[in-house]
Amino acid sequence: MAKDPRPFDVFDGGCPSREVLEHVTSRWGALTLAALSPEPARFGELRRCVDGISEKMLSQTLKALESDGLVDRQVRSTLPAHVDYVLTPAGETVADAVKALVLALYGVMPEVMRVRDTA
Amino acid sequence: MAKDPRPFDVFDGGCPSREVLEHVTSRWGALTLAALSPEPARFGELRRCVDGISEKMLSQTLKALESDGLVDRQVRSTLPAHVDYVLTPAGETVADAVKALVLALYGVMPEVMRVRDTA
Repeated sequence: MAKDPRPFDVFDGGCPSREVLEHVTSRWGALTLAALSPEPARFGELRRCVDGISEKMLSQTLKALESDGLVDRQVRSTLPAHVDYVLTPAGETVADAVKALVLALYGVMPEVMRVRDTA
Repeated sequence: MAKDPRPFDVFDGGCPSREVLEHVTSRWGALTLAALSPEPARFGELRRCVDGISEKMLSQTLKALESDGLVDRQVRSTLPAHVDYVLTPAGETVADAVKALVLALYGVMPEVMRVRDTA
């Protein structure tokens, strides 16, 4: 089998996958991806869903995810124009993994709470 | 079925699961968890594995993961004393999900690179 001409390695600080990992696991990136799955959402809906995110941070987060091709901005030509944020197929793949991580976290939270309570 | 007395919700800024999500998806948290799986590692090994992490950041990251009960610090009474960082069972669950996220990312990286190259 031919060697992958572009192997990725998040442990390597110079690998582009490191930067994308940082976008999808940033303070707000993971929550925004999860909030966009499975339904597209409007800016205001995302802002209400992701408690604590500011307009500026949501806007920056969406831009980073868009530039990675994980989120698509769809403008519907209604009056007034209506913008939906939608996961691309690549974004869905990543959002599914983020949601699985969140579910894994919920599974261990009772243990985390126990450790913290006894610390 | 009785309602879970402690439902968790990462979208809720006041939920403790939000804070743990931030630890495991912090700039260095995800990489440190992945680097500790499947083998325990010493501080210096982790530092070499996670390219770009400073001693201070690795130390802070390990402390946060320890306080969440995801990482355990094991001191072996050799001379000189030898400290291993080990995933707890809860930490293994979370690290597995982080590694699955990284693999999902590798899977979409060719598409991400394509989008970036044409931007």
